[in-house]
Amino acid sequence: MLLGKDVPRLTVSIDIPQAVRWHAGALRIIDQTLLPAEYREIDLVDVDDVVEAITRLRVRGAPAIGVAGALGLVASLGPHLDLSAPEFRARLEESGDRIRKARPTATNLAWAVDRLLRRARLDAGASNSELWSSLLAEATAILEEDREMCRRIGEHGLKLLRDGSTVLTHCNTGALATAGIGTALAPVYLAAERGLCVRVLATETRPLLQGSRLTAWELERAGIDVTVLPDGAAADAMRALGVDMVIVGADRIVANGDVANKVGTYGLAIAARHHRIPFYVAAPSSTFDFSLESGDRIPIEQRGGDEVRRMSGRQIAPETVAVYGAAFDVTPAELISGIITEAGLFKPTEVSTLRSRSDNAEV
Amino acid sequence: MLLGKDVPRLTVSIDIPQAVRWHAGALRIIDQTLLPAEYREIDLVDVDDVVEAITRLRVRGAPAIGVAGALGLVASLGPHLDLSAPEFRARLEESGDRIRKARPTATNLAWAVDRLLRRARLDAGASNSELWSSLLAEATAILEEDREMCRRIGEHGLKLLRDGSTVLTHCNTGALATAGIGTALAPVYLAAERGLCVRVLATETRPLLQGSRLTAWELERAGIDVTVLPDGAAADAMRALGVDMVIVGADRIVANGDVANKVGTYGLAIAARHHRIPFYVAAPSSTFDFSLESGDRIPIEQRGGDEVRRMSGRQIAPETVAVYGAAFDVTPAELISGIITEAGLFKPTEVSTLRSRSDNAEV
Repeated sequence: MLLGKDVPRLTVSIDIPQAVRWHAGALRIIDQTLLPAEYREIDLVDVDDVVEAITRLRVRGAPAIGVAGALGLVASLGPHLDLSAPEFRARLEESGDRIRKARPTATNLAWAVDRLLRRARLDAGASNSELWSSLLAEATAILEEDREMCRRIGEHGLKLLRDGSTVLTHCNTGALATAGIGTALAPVYLAAERGLCVRVLATETRPLLQGSRLTAWELERAGIDVTVLPDGAAADAMRALGVDMVIVGADRIVANGDVANKVGTYGLAIAARHHRIPFYVAAPSSTFDFSLESGDRIPIEQRGGDEVRRMSGRQIAPETVAVYGAAFDVTPAELISGIITEAGLFKPTEVSTLRSRSDNAEV
Repeated sequence: MLLGKDVPRLTVSIDIPQAVRWHAGALRIIDQTLLPAEYREIDLVDVDDVVEAITRLRVRGAPAIGVAGALGLVASLGPHLDLSAPEFRARLEESGDRIRKARPTATNLAWAVDRLLRRARLDAGASNSELWSSLLAEATAILEEDREMCRRIGEHGLKLLRDGSTVLTHCNTGALATAGIGTALAPVYLAAERGLCVRVLATETRPLLQGSRLTAWELERAGIDVTVLPDGAAADAMRALGVDMVIVGADRIVANGDVANKVGTYGLAIAARHHRIPFYVAAPSSTFDFSLESGDRIPIEQRGGDEVRRMSGRQIAPETVAVYGAAFDVTPAELISGIITEAGLFKPTEVSTLRSRSDNAEV
């Protein structure tokens, strides 16, 4: 009886940054374009600034931009409570529309904004200030749910890890990509919290280097063993370094289990299959889009060529050379071993059965 | 009869840079670390400078560093003709040894230096000045042979191309990587010379961006349709853009047909196989190393972590984060559709039969 209580639990407190939160009437974010060289938080209350921050990737990561979109929309309405009720509601719809379109691929952003707009329609008779409070409560709920979802994803993913596991990941799917402890990195954080040694191989993720700039930064900060590698070295690392599994996030998961995620994910999935390494996707259910039957229907954001042609202001390719600027790619369900959600671990073929459990079913 | 003569031949003159040559007693190279922002040629006569230029990748590409090593060794001996004969020969051996070790993976560098040292042994009774002239002739022959090999590789590879072909390539294997028109890009140049439209997809090739900095620069300069893509986007490009074949270069090809080439090649070969896209390696026979039975014996150069952690002086990863710095990877023979050499197109399984045809057989 005493044994279980007496054995010291190797629980470590992990220092995790807060990528997105509410602060004194504003959306407060860490400006991720400045990391790792500089840590700076910025407060946003203007809809133009919210859209700019999402478009320019000052805040990024599918769950985080959902939360940021919701909190940013509420913050932007704060200074306009003295408008007439119809004007206030028109402004809500218009600003919501602008924020929803700030980035096209991740479904969470539209999902979060639409959730606030539905809330507003339910509060049809409310005063501006009642409506605003109700929207803030809804946006805060989205943030809290995101935190809780991250932790549950972590718990389900943790079952896949053991002491000494090596996890290869892509882009940033940690605390900086969510309001909580991340999606694909959540199991890693929970493992560390419980004293397990897990090694992370982080692809640098060109062109915007979310892996080397952000994943490496937050894992190193949390005391987790992390090694950065060029994207092209991932297949070699799978053979040479011993990778137990790949875990990535997702920007959109559609009905047949196909997954849109940061460009490079598809190549990792192919390489993992070649090496018989399990390939997992970790994402909250707000990432599911049951309205699309297969991945080829997902709109893929094409970003400007200068993200590839220039770096830190320096020209690294001919100034006018053509660039393939797809920000995301689609990994077909057949290359995915499992999808880790807050509700558990599923086969991609089971995605359609999750429809009834999801908030998205309301849309 | 007249018809054949009257039809205008669509032969275009292609403007190709000279990466490495002999100029007024010096090794003249284009400093490739400055491209594409600046074009600058530098003349090297000191062995320290030759080693530095090769180590720092001012001149790079397996065939080019073979030629540069040979010409650089001869240039470095020029100021020392008044040494005693034994001192001069000792200096030759010592400098040759230093140059040979400047980079470990490409076999061409050691091959070229050893060829000069063999020449010197054959000229045992020669005066310093006779020996130096003989070495210069040998180094110049290596350069001329490299040019001729490039063109022959181009002719053999050209048979694989048709008007409208899309070729995906990695790193830089063009004029900047050789003394001639390149290896993997040689068929593309010959196609352009004959008026065929060939589109090239060039992976940027992190960490040193030889694809975006060099391949894009020299192809655009030659008027060839080129699109740069992040390394991670290659698998997506294979599916989305229609790739007819992958052609890459090689730093070393061993007896069983395994190929060491710039890190990222292995992942491209896996992705090509997944998409049933033919995967070719183009390299001169000086790249063959019959002394190694399989690819796992090839020494793989590990480069410093700051090539990944910093860029243009800017910190793009935590300052002390661990980095996987393998500069090359090994693509197993079974993923390779064919190897294009100056002697023709071979299956990787036929490599061992090429032994008797190669200069390497003398080693």
